[in-house]
Amino acid sequence: MKSDELFALLRRRGVLWPTAEIYGGAQGLYDYGPLGASLKRQVEEAWVAWFVGLSHDYYRLDPAEILPEAVVRASGHLENFTDPEVSCETCHAAFRAETVLEKIRPEGVDGLVSAQIAEILLANHARCPNCGSTALSVPRPFNLMFGLDFGVTGKERAYLRPETAQSSYLAFPRMWDVGRHALPLGVAVVGKAYRNEIAPRQVLFRMRAFTQAELQIFFDPAGFPVPFARVREEPLPVLRVPRRESGEESPEWVTAADLVASGGLPEFYVYHLVHCYRFFRDVLGYPADRLRLFEKSDRERAFYNRLQFDIEGRLESLGGFKELGAVHYRGEYDLSRHGEGSGKDLSVTLTDGRSVRPHVLELTFGVDRNVWALADLLLGVEGERTLWRLPAYLAPVSVGVFPLIPKAHAAYALRLADELAAANIAVRYDDGGTIGKRYARMDEAGTPFCVTVDAETLAEGEKKDTVTLRERDSRAQTRVAVGELVSRIRTATCLPRPPRY
Amino acid sequence: MKSDELFALLRRRGVLWPTAEIYGGAQGLYDYGPLGASLKRQVEEAWVAWFVGLSHDYYRLDPAEILPEAVVRASGHLENFTDPEVSCETCHAAFRAETVLEKIRPEGVDGLVSAQIAEILLANHARCPNCGSTALSVPRPFNLMFGLDFGVTGKERAYLRPETAQSSYLAFPRMWDVGRHALPLGVAVVGKAYRNEIAPRQVLFRMRAFTQAELQIFFDPAGFPVPFARVREEPLPVLRVPRRESGEESPEWVTAADLVASGGLPEFYVYHLVHCYRFFRDVLGYPADRLRLFEKSDRERAFYNRLQFDIEGRLESLGGFKELGAVHYRGEYDLSRHGEGSGKDLSVTLTDGRSVRPHVLELTFGVDRNVWALADLLLGVEGERTLWRLPAYLAPVSVGVFPLIPKAHAAYALRLADELAAANIAVRYDDGGTIGKRYARMDEAGTPFCVTVDAETLAEGEKKDTVTLRERDSRAQTRVAVGELVSRIRTATCLPRPPRY
Repeated sequence: MKSDELFALLRRRGVLWPTAEIYGGAQGLYDYGPLGASLKRQVEEAWVAWFVGLSHDYYRLDPAEILPEAVVRASGHLENFTDPEVSCETCHAAFRAETVLEKIRPEGVDGLVSAQIAEILLANHARCPNCGSTALSVPRPFNLMFGLDFGVTGKERAYLRPETAQSSYLAFPRMWDVGRHALPLGVAVVGKAYRNEIAPRQVLFRMRAFTQAELQIFFDPAGFPVPFARVREEPLPVLRVPRRESGEESPEWVTAADLVASGGLPEFYVYHLVHCYRFFRDVLGYPADRLRLFEKSDRERAFYNRLQFDIEGRLESLGGFKELGAVHYRGEYDLSRHGEGSGKDLSVTLTDGRSVRPHVLELTFGVDRNVWALADLLLGVEGERTLWRLPAYLAPVSVGVFPLIPKAHAAYALRLADELAAANIAVRYDDGGTIGKRYARMDEAGTPFCVTVDAETLAEGEKKDTVTLRERDSRAQTRVAVGELVSRIRTATCLPRPPRY
Repeated sequence: MKSDELFALLRRRGVLWPTAEIYGGAQGLYDYGPLGASLKRQVEEAWVAWFVGLSHDYYRLDPAEILPEAVVRASGHLENFTDPEVSCETCHAAFRAETVLEKIRPEGVDGLVSAQIAEILLANHARCPNCGSTALSVPRPFNLMFGLDFGVTGKERAYLRPETAQSSYLAFPRMWDVGRHALPLGVAVVGKAYRNEIAPRQVLFRMRAFTQAELQIFFDPAGFPVPFARVREEPLPVLRVPRRESGEESPEWVTAADLVASGGLPEFYVYHLVHCYRFFRDVLGYPADRLRLFEKSDRERAFYNRLQFDIEGRLESLGGFKELGAVHYRGEYDLSRHGEGSGKDLSVTLTDGRSVRPHVLELTFGVDRNVWALADLLLGVEGERTLWRLPAYLAPVSVGVFPLIPKAHAAYALRLADELAAANIAVRYDDGGTIGKRYARMDEAGTPFCVTVDAETLAEGEKKDTVTLRERDSRAQTRVAVGELVSRIRTATCLPRPPRY
């Protein structure tokens, strides 16, 4: 489906819609409705189960989204978290320089200074995307953080965090005390980040308020032992820099062992890259042939990142590969900057007596983007039905409960729905329209199971207290005792976990 | 425990700490550590299970926290969401007028205009709480919303929402379409709200970024049918306005039926008040003798609230009764304001052909405050132990898993911990120190169950694959087959739900 068509479907089904829709919306802000809120939460829980599940020493935090100025000064965001912006001197509209240059220079503007961008604009007679004028300003750096007047004096500044990662770095010394005094130590945050994007677009892909899930692993720079043998044969769809620079877009299949042996990557890095890839393929259920591991070059990645692969998905709605997550080896940059900024020594003493400042491996994941990707990759028209092939544990509703004939069977069906809810199962009762219509609504919402209460459920006899259980993908219908439903549904909706290190 | 003492304990255990602690913190902002983040999430889930569980037509949403200016203009927040602020002309510190007047006028400043406050300050020779000077400014209204420059022009304004409620009102027309076209229709939001408090204090009680859980019930003003018979005999600890005005602080026990018959309150209102009270008493487990239902007078409640009872808890750490939740009958104010503000007709047509603009009943709940109240009311020193008597379904960790002798039993215990985690049970593995020390850590964290793997677990014989299960409150120890653990723990940690209407 095209982006507009997909958004229209999601809006109609109450998955999401623009914030303050009755006021005409607000650029780059979206509200999740009942299905979307539940799907987003399930994606978050699946991410936590998988990544925090990597070790007993990995923890989830819930820090505030507002940071004092000293923090974003030390992290470099106050100075450098900018996007070059160009304004039109004719119509006064403002644009990201990248947007204006999109067709002329598809490789983007990363690494170029303002004067270089200005030169390219001029040399190519670049035009305002709004009015077509060539009277474009020299690019100026536009800081993407939202600043706040904090407190009553008007002199104190704070910022909505531009990434959750900073909250985790600040927590490191406290977490060292709370944990086992051992590395690696992992800190996960699932929460909001905010960016005043110059040009929000592509619905959930460039929002001004969005949810990140990020795991920061603090590890001993002298070594991060991982059970690499478990992953060495894993084939990975990789697009490395030399191949990219020769113009290739499609990945090559390379084993994890090859990436280490001939690719020069450390085992700990590839081990985590494999687990990220598996999360997209095995947990979220994305088709492997729609994924690639895209290496960023020196020029493209932030200067403090020693290694960076983005995990990208090929999305029909957005016309190509898009970043869905990434693995950043950030080295000692973060603890070093916050050590200087705060004047606190953020090194720790290990049991062997060495004092080290941990390095950071960051696994980052865009929650909203992946809600969209789940729709793009798994929701579609198949024959006469619209079907969302969500893995059962991600589905907003696990089971639909229907009375075949509402007048006769509603009381039983409602009681059954309550019993399932009491067992913490996400249930939706529906008595509207034909059974076919109700199945169709559930297919569209990705509900893996539907049960129907009918005359046989109520009547004395062999089928008393049994219901028709209908499976979404196969449409197979079987007769099941109501007493078995809880365990059947629970088994199917248990979140997958990785093996621990 | 006193506030400082309680906070020190919570900080030491990694429940919470000030945001950006290494930079000296930020007033009114706190980060939740591993135990706190999990407890807060459990409280949120318990709230959702209970209140969204009231009806199949109640839904949870997840809307953006940023609202365009038109929204907060229509809601009245731009004009009226202010607190009178006084500054000291000697030391330049700023204070809430209420803080300066605290001792002189314990009933607060609600309803007073600036000139009246100025007169009281002067007449009482009020002094600056910081330097003692009497040179205090005339109070000025200080808007508590955080404003944002939204977009690149610097002309567009947006605000961090001061309450989650506004997001739900904006969603009403969309939710009407998504739902069954019937009233009552409930919309629940658990999310952040932001207030630039002049004087943040009392740790989680007046924060600048905090989490609210609010259910907005849109209902037909011609009648909101509830099964009142189910609650009529419920005794409630009520403190009504006349009794308050005679100087009483302690509640009277009154039945729900009495509140309707002789108290003049509508059945639908009292029905929901009972369910709120039950949530605090039965779900959160607060002692009934520490709760009261505190009626707000005309002068104290917002002008659009027709009825308001706060649910208050008597907290030792904060020296008295504090608001933990409330039930607001907001009438037609909200949909009427947003109807005017947006120019959209927010009335709906019911199946009987009537066109109505729904009224709103709001059930509101402060998540952070209740995390604090759970510590104040249920965490304490009992004999030689520090014990957190959290209900099992709220505990951050459901079960601690220990190897009796780490060298001999760790492999089995780790495997068991993984199996429990795979069944979505919150487990913590601990092999540090004596078993007594590990029990003590779990008691302090409120963990309801601990299991210990020992030689008998591993050895062939009758007790193979059994473990010692130790119950937190009673300290009772029983021998249990590992195969039974999942169902034992699940039964104890299932979230309570109310009967549906």
